[in-house]
Amino acid sequence: MTPDALPDRSPLALAQALIRCPSVTPEEGGALDLLARLLEAAGFAVHRPRFSEPGTPDVENLFARIGTGGPALLFAGHTDVVPPGETGAWRHGPFDGTVADGLLYGRGAVDMKGGVACMLAAALDFVAASGPGFAGSIGFLITGDEEGPAVNGTVKLLDWARARGERFDHCLLGEPTNPSALGEMIKIGRRGSLTGKLTVHGRQGHVAYPHKAENPIPGLLRLASALCEQPIDGGTAHFDASNLAFTTIDVGNPATNVIPAEARAVFNIRFNESWTAETLGAEVRRRLDAAAGGSIRFTLDLPPSNAPAFLTQPDAFTDLVIAAIEAETGLRPVLSTTGGTSDARFIKDFCPVIEFGLVGETMHQTDECVAVADLERLTAIYRRLIASYFARP
Amino acid sequence: MTPDALPDRSPLALAQALIRCPSVTPEEGGALDLLARLLEAAGFAVHRPRFSEPGTPDVENLFARIGTGGPALLFAGHTDVVPPGETGAWRHGPFDGTVADGLLYGRGAVDMKGGVACMLAAALDFVAASGPGFAGSIGFLITGDEEGPAVNGTVKLLDWARARGERFDHCLLGEPTNPSALGEMIKIGRRGSLTGKLTVHGRQGHVAYPHKAENPIPGLLRLASALCEQPIDGGTAHFDASNLAFTTIDVGNPATNVIPAEARAVFNIRFNESWTAETLGAEVRRRLDAAAGGSIRFTLDLPPSNAPAFLTQPDAFTDLVIAAIEAETGLRPVLSTTGGTSDARFIKDFCPVIEFGLVGETMHQTDECVAVADLERLTAIYRRLIASYFARP
Repeated sequence: MTPDALPDRSPLALAQALIRCPSVTPEEGGALDLLARLLEAAGFAVHRPRFSEPGTPDVENLFARIGTGGPALLFAGHTDVVPPGETGAWRHGPFDGTVADGLLYGRGAVDMKGGVACMLAAALDFVAASGPGFAGSIGFLITGDEEGPAVNGTVKLLDWARARGERFDHCLLGEPTNPSALGEMIKIGRRGSLTGKLTVHGRQGHVAYPHKAENPIPGLLRLASALCEQPIDGGTAHFDASNLAFTTIDVGNPATNVIPAEARAVFNIRFNESWTAETLGAEVRRRLDAAAGGSIRFTLDLPPSNAPAFLTQPDAFTDLVIAAIEAETGLRPVLSTTGGTSDARFIKDFCPVIEFGLVGETMHQTDECVAVADLERLTAIYRRLIASYFARP
Repeated sequence: MTPDALPDRSPLALAQALIRCPSVTPEEGGALDLLARLLEAAGFAVHRPRFSEPGTPDVENLFARIGTGGPALLFAGHTDVVPPGETGAWRHGPFDGTVADGLLYGRGAVDMKGGVACMLAAALDFVAASGPGFAGSIGFLITGDEEGPAVNGTVKLLDWARARGERFDHCLLGEPTNPSALGEMIKIGRRGSLTGKLTVHGRQGHVAYPHKAENPIPGLLRLASALCEQPIDGGTAHFDASNLAFTTIDVGNPATNVIPAEARAVFNIRFNESWTAETLGAEVRRRLDAAAGGSIRFTLDLPPSNAPAFLTQPDAFTDLVIAAIEAETGLRPVLSTTGGTSDARFIKDFCPVIEFGLVGETMHQTDECVAVADLERLTAIYRRLIASYFARP
């Protein structure tokens, strides 16, 4: 492709063109430029806010809109991708966009350049067919900081849009939501995430003189076991039980004859709507205090969480998405709140948001790939959604 | 001191001269050269075996003997020292041998250049007074690998001596044995040391999908807790209870959203004479198997231990040492098996060995120091011991 040529409007061509932009987070890699040119050519007003903050990389973002009135439908997504890891381990180059045996290979194929390509293809098709004067608006909110620290991306882009007076009635975030087959699952909320650092303090000494030292490790074993053994809760109507996982324990003492001075552990809790980060943090502290019984000196560090649990109550918009999925795939999607966090946790304060995209099986892996047929079908679902959305009485 | 001048025979001058040799393990630093010249000048036959083994540094050692018959008394010790750490944190240079306020400062002041200086001063005094034709033998077995891996030191030096047909009736090892005052404690044995590495195996995954992963940390908490909570034994007549200490736990997972694949811990057991490393290893394995209950996948790595527990039964030689200590200090020493390991664990297979030296309080620390008065008194104790040893009927 020459610099000025645009790919045709097929989701495969768009996905290939996006994969060929090496936009490893936080690099823009040409991906947002490509989207900007395609959207501008179709009549969208395109903005490219760049945000920065000390200690984090600058990030480029994109906001585009066509139409000014309602109903207003927002598509959201990201073009940054996680690093490819060892490039040589890939069957096809991670930034080549190779198609083989009906599969498009490349970093971002499903997470989520593929999804962005489908929403773009569907919207461009609709605008081309209806002309720019349709009753309503379509917007695109695309960040380059979803896989990074999420500081200079969606949060600031939403603030920027609010400050401009941008309003939308519904948002569809195109993250990969299906475990194994397109049409299986819509996400109507997400669990929150709380990370804590637990440090037990002791006193260093020689293992041969344990009475002169204070080994922090038995205390850490006691506190960590207490957190692991009691379930956090029993789940709710729309959510699984909250889950606590210790992700690391590190003492870093290379000397087998030395009792260390400190032992540190990190845990992460994926929690449901029965908690906020604050109430859950207090509960963790209560359980640790009870287990310590005043005899274990510990510090609990709970940095502020930017990942609350949230639920978007199913409504008429959800029904439209379900209907489009059923019509194109024959599957009736489950309404789920499982999985990790996504930028939907920020968008939910801007407008109701649900998520539906490709099959996530290979995301973040070597040989990430998507079935070309899935790209076509997801585009058809989005196309049908847009048509029914703007056909509403 | 010019290269050829020898310090006078006072324990302070000898200790200062030794401290000024920067013999940080495994460096010889001139310390053994100095001993060799002093011993040769006094009529000892001196040997300087150097041992090597792939993967460990070459180490210089010293063996000296005067006399051929019995009774034969062996003094043992080492001239290598642990590193000084941050030299600038020392009140006086760690290799300067400065005396201030009645204290001699320097790395090795108590562990154990001070002790070596005292045994040397006492032996040289005795030989000078009695002449080389006294009835019996005095030997010196001095290694440069006590603070290092202990591979090319005492073990090989003993083999070398055995091969030469060297025999001794008793050995006095001059390690610092007194907790706070000279005369408090003789060591008549040492606990053994066994180090084990425990690895729990899991399966890596995303914290948001715990059912797809297998977190090894809860399993490690369970196994490590089981080892910490049950006492190993209740102690014996001459030994404290065996003690297990976890010295480190390391997972090394920097990602708070990833469940790690493996968790590793290291523990060290100081065990008494009711165990060998083999029987204790089997007991640890039995306890881990019981705690794992078949549901925790783990590996227990128990490298061969070269530190068995041992006891030298108190006898007439012990009584001589006690009498010399009481006469010079007025204290009746406790017969102890506490503390860390020492080269006595190797010597005990060569001849009966007990340990008595300086006050260990500052050993391995910044500002390691010894009271000059203690150097004089320990020399007097050793001198009295030698005199009574060779005066025996």
